[in-house]
Amino acid sequence: MKGIEVKNISRSFKDTRALHQINLTFEEGKIYGLLGRNGAGKSTLLNIISNRKYPDEGYVTVDGVPSVENDDALRKIFLINEKNLYPESMKVKDAFKISKDFYPSFDEAYALKLSEMFELNIKKKIKSLSTGYQSIFRNILALSVNVPYVFFDEPVLGLDAYHRDLFYKILIEKYSEEPFTAVISTHLIEEVANVIEEVIIIKKGEILKNESRDNLLANSYTVSGTISQVDSYLSSLPKYTEVLGADVIGGLKSAYILGKSDKHLPEGLEKSPMDLQKLFIHLTSI
Amino acid sequence: MKGIEVKNISRSFKDTRALHQINLTFEEGKIYGLLGRNGAGKSTLLNIISNRKYPDEGYVTVDGVPSVENDDALRKIFLINEKNLYPESMKVKDAFKISKDFYPSFDEAYALKLSEMFELNIKKKIKSLSTGYQSIFRNILALSVNVPYVFFDEPVLGLDAYHRDLFYKILIEKYSEEPFTAVISTHLIEEVANVIEEVIIIKKGEILKNESRDNLLANSYTVSGTISQVDSYLSSLPKYTEVLGADVIGGLKSAYILGKSDKHLPEGLEKSPMDLQKLFIHLTSI
Repeated sequence: MKGIEVKNISRSFKDTRALHQINLTFEEGKIYGLLGRNGAGKSTLLNIISNRKYPDEGYVTVDGVPSVENDDALRKIFLINEKNLYPESMKVKDAFKISKDFYPSFDEAYALKLSEMFELNIKKKIKSLSTGYQSIFRNILALSVNVPYVFFDEPVLGLDAYHRDLFYKILIEKYSEEPFTAVISTHLIEEVANVIEEVIIIKKGEILKNESRDNLLANSYTVSGTISQVDSYLSSLPKYTEVLGADVIGGLKSAYILGKSDKHLPEGLEKSPMDLQKLFIHLTSI
Repeated sequence: MKGIEVKNISRSFKDTRALHQINLTFEEGKIYGLLGRNGAGKSTLLNIISNRKYPDEGYVTVDGVPSVENDDALRKIFLINEKNLYPESMKVKDAFKISKDFYPSFDEAYALKLSEMFELNIKKKIKSLSTGYQSIFRNILALSVNVPYVFFDEPVLGLDAYHRDLFYKILIEKYSEEPFTAVISTHLIEEVANVIEEVIIIKKGEILKNESRDNLLANSYTVSGTISQVDSYLSSLPKYTEVLGADVIGGLKSAYILGKSDKHLPEGLEKSPMDLQKLFIHLTSI
């Protein structure tokens, strides 16, 4: 059985419940977005999956095998996050060299090619890199390591728009050539909406949504019109329809609705698709 | 004469030319986007305007008066950036209190109200705040200070989507009630596109664009179609039209063009508006 399974994971820190009974599957060869507010538990989950933190309860399997104290299983996983695992006084090019020792499939030539594309100076010490270039350095490691499961925690923090665009393009290109499982945890949701296939939303340590992006977006929409028109439309909706919120500008109102929309809206109302970031904001606002 | 004028500012660091002959005007009561790649010179410019760094050449005037060693002029300016000017062991609530000493117009009650909205714990020490909450703390200072010229350097770094949305909403609300000059330097261009009126793009220490957002977007467009159709359209364009770049997916091509579009495109081609972030990426890629 291929894939990573997260089985009933819970974890608390002092009096804070970070994760509560999390069950998830990361299938082979898919790109996931792991979305959540600051403090929702995303980083704790990624640290547990990669064995850098331990759960209070539950366990993780990699290709069917429990991962705890299992080097073969853990070597199939690569996590990049703000915690840098390389000695800080090491130079970038030396970090590439030693990566081959830990990960025999690490492609040093590819790492050097990406460094050129991002104009990363490989002679610099890791600790002397700016926030943006720290992210670029870690992304290059993750893109060159060639393991089946790669987890990106905030890969574009500090990157300018051109470098973010380049990162997404290279990720998609690499994935198209040889699919792997990529899990991207990010606050820049609208930018990854076209990159990810599956969406996992964590809220206060629990899974709120776990479905394909297309499904999630197909089951939500925006309705706009005059305040009275929109209000009368909202009151006509079946009881099980959830209204996530609304914005009012002047005399106009836009309401964000979870559920399938009618084929025919009342005259004067306009329907538009929901974007993933708007949906996220409304789902996680309370 | 109201407004800030940047007069022929140049500045080098060692062998790097950070800024070269910059001339700019920030008018009263407008919202500006200051956009540029990492290392383009944005932060140096903001530090010079707020007198935290000195130019090699040129000067800055505030409401017509040179700002160097002029406390009255400098008190009209507030800059927030990653450099925190408060003692790090100070608590948030005490930072609000002493802000009134420097800026008599600082609205402490409003700062406390915003802290509640962002769930910022005012009893915490500044240094113990996460990256996201450091940004929130600085934004609250900037929104409460009530001076005519407020400069935001990366105000949403580390903020989740909900908090970014809240920040933009509060900024617009405050601006609508009493307009002030806000200059926002950010890498999240598409998100501020609807907030800013004026766009300044800096590239390698020089001003590349300085015009209204509407003008900039009205003079650019995207054309999509089959590769051969798009190529033949591009070759038919007048010589002074600039083609910024293109994306190819399968047999289809989208080209990004600077210039006014024809009213009637050849059959089979589709025109769509350019978004500001795409435009930025293509203008600053080389």
